[in-house]
Amino acid sequence: MKTALKFKITATDNNARLGQIHTARGIINTPSFIPVGTIATVKSMTVEELKDIGAEIILSNTYHLYLRPGHEVIKKLGGLHKFMNWKGPVLTDSGGFQVFSLSPLRKISDEGVEFRSHLDGSTHFLTPELATQIQAALGSDIAMAFDECTPYPATREYTLKSLQLTTTWAARCLEARTGGQALFAIVQGGVYKDLREQSAEELIKMGFDGYAIGGLSVGEPKELMYEMINYTTPLLPKDQTRYLMGIGDLNDVIEAVSAGIDIFDCVMPTRNARNGTLFTSQGRISIKREEFKEDPNPLDPECRCYTCRNYSKAYLRHLYMSREILSMRLNTYHNLYFYLEFFRKMREAILNGEFERFRREQTPILQNNFHDD
Amino acid sequence: MKTALKFKITATDNNARLGQIHTARGIINTPSFIPVGTIATVKSMTVEELKDIGAEIILSNTYHLYLRPGHEVIKKLGGLHKFMNWKGPVLTDSGGFQVFSLSPLRKISDEGVEFRSHLDGSTHFLTPELATQIQAALGSDIAMAFDECTPYPATREYTLKSLQLTTTWAARCLEARTGGQALFAIVQGGVYKDLREQSAEELIKMGFDGYAIGGLSVGEPKELMYEMINYTTPLLPKDQTRYLMGIGDLNDVIEAVSAGIDIFDCVMPTRNARNGTLFTSQGRISIKREEFKEDPNPLDPECRCYTCRNYSKAYLRHLYMSREILSMRLNTYHNLYFYLEFFRKMREAILNGEFERFRREQTPILQNNFHDD
Repeated sequence: MKTALKFKITATDNNARLGQIHTARGIINTPSFIPVGTIATVKSMTVEELKDIGAEIILSNTYHLYLRPGHEVIKKLGGLHKFMNWKGPVLTDSGGFQVFSLSPLRKISDEGVEFRSHLDGSTHFLTPELATQIQAALGSDIAMAFDECTPYPATREYTLKSLQLTTTWAARCLEARTGGQALFAIVQGGVYKDLREQSAEELIKMGFDGYAIGGLSVGEPKELMYEMINYTTPLLPKDQTRYLMGIGDLNDVIEAVSAGIDIFDCVMPTRNARNGTLFTSQGRISIKREEFKEDPNPLDPECRCYTCRNYSKAYLRHLYMSREILSMRLNTYHNLYFYLEFFRKMREAILNGEFERFRREQTPILQNNFHDD
Repeated sequence: MKTALKFKITATDNNARLGQIHTARGIINTPSFIPVGTIATVKSMTVEELKDIGAEIILSNTYHLYLRPGHEVIKKLGGLHKFMNWKGPVLTDSGGFQVFSLSPLRKISDEGVEFRSHLDGSTHFLTPELATQIQAALGSDIAMAFDECTPYPATREYTLKSLQLTTTWAARCLEARTGGQALFAIVQGGVYKDLREQSAEELIKMGFDGYAIGGLSVGEPKELMYEMINYTTPLLPKDQTRYLMGIGDLNDVIEAVSAGIDIFDCVMPTRNARNGTLFTSQGRISIKREEFKEDPNPLDPECRCYTCRNYSKAYLRHLYMSREILSMRLNTYHNLYFYLEFFRKMREAILNGEFERFRREQTPILQNNFHDD
């Protein structure tokens, strides 16, 4: 089936790739960071602000929108883009990860997953077909195949069974697909290289519009995660989009980009912002600290974002200590701006064949967590 | 002492007045609504958004800013305007009402009020001199004299003693004043006409830059409140600003403007917005109601605000039900826009000698509370 999505690589630097995803709703420059708008809003931001800071795509969630307000409601209202007034591309997660991480009780069968709503405890049954229908109703530009996110640790036997289920479900998603929505499959296989290989091979054979690596950053040691990223990424088709799901620590992003990953999503910049942890060109800081009480300087003198151009650390601390809504706004704006700038600089470095220099310069700064708490 | 503040009446319609308050930081067109930014932020709004919707002045609070982050901190950082990045005029409340309404324990003496912080229970002693110093440190354009907000009900004897204290304190505030900050006094006297008269006379004799009516909307019946507004307002100097403190129900506003009041502050539009109660040209609605679940229409088709131009009632309901930050933003933006538009139309009506028509047209709409809960 023909979809509206095209992917082009415009430059490479070793395995790192500079590219463009062309969608009917606009171009996404890769490597790209996708801000997370779980329930049809990137928390605290307007869509105009997202556009202003350079967001080219956002992510929303099948699981959450199915439960509330309901995908049929959103469909009646003209789809997710119209509902939330975002004119650019949207990627929707399939719900596979959320039934795994949010539902207090779930029962997996070949047919699908029975789960309890984290909102009201009601029972629901999500299948590959339903996940595909929901995403079609939402009208996202890129849909994800419904998968089982294999937990960590898991035995080889469980992991194999789980990836086989994911493969079968991916085939059913492909079958259920209607219209021109792009569909990405998710490679599972836990921390077993041969199973990652098997999963990738089976999915690639079916022919998706892009491929994600799932089931990482679920509790495994970082070295093991890096090993799996570096092993799995080259298994994915060179000429298609490669997506590392749910990972957004910028150290991990650099590692993954150097392996050839193109797109990322993560709640890290937005959730941290609301908790007062802010990213700067000198490292991460916690705005609540006493030392900022009378600090007249901007959060990051090198940053040109609205927050840094207009407010002092003292004011940001005051808003945070007072639990003010404006605190979440200004912090989120800054952190997302920082992330999108980081990705812009990373793309520039790849274009100039200087990705290794970028990596060497950024790594020590990213490890500056001045005051984790 | 000469202050930077000048008040000019440009038109009248019976007792209703159209005017301008000239301050060093800009002109305030009256009748004017002052959005409340208690702790140096109008909840959920940026200062640019306040300017965009036509706010000409905002209010901040002595009591809150004294406790956190401390007025000396704000002074060191260049004053309240610089701290919060608001370039227009600011009026600061004196803290008299807040020690009365927020402190769990307070002891009033001739010297001042001992109170417990609502934040950490620490004990503080607020005097007329300290309230004046705090407001000078904050650098507001209009400061309020420190008063005792007489509770309701109160005996005539208590009310008399209380207003005498307010008079003495007002004299001490005048004495303690430094620099070019304008100082308004607050008329007390509870629900006793002769005491309101006595309070007004004593304060006017001292010569302030403007006069407020305090101690209303503290539990008394509405008819009694209206009686006191209508009795007290004409006692205040015609050529100076008249301020009705803390009252913002638009029915009350119309009554007070018709009596000759010029400025108002109230948390009603902002607090209601956060609780999902929204003002429209048809009356008040509660956005949480099931009937809006699939409603594709804007909140108020007659409204030109950002929220109404871009979002459906269904989306606003979804955000509200999901307790999203964007819900508070969009709702607050709309309610404040509605209030400022209401005041703009009211000023136009006074200019055209049509205030009575405006009142007749608006009153039934304002009484439409479609679904109070």
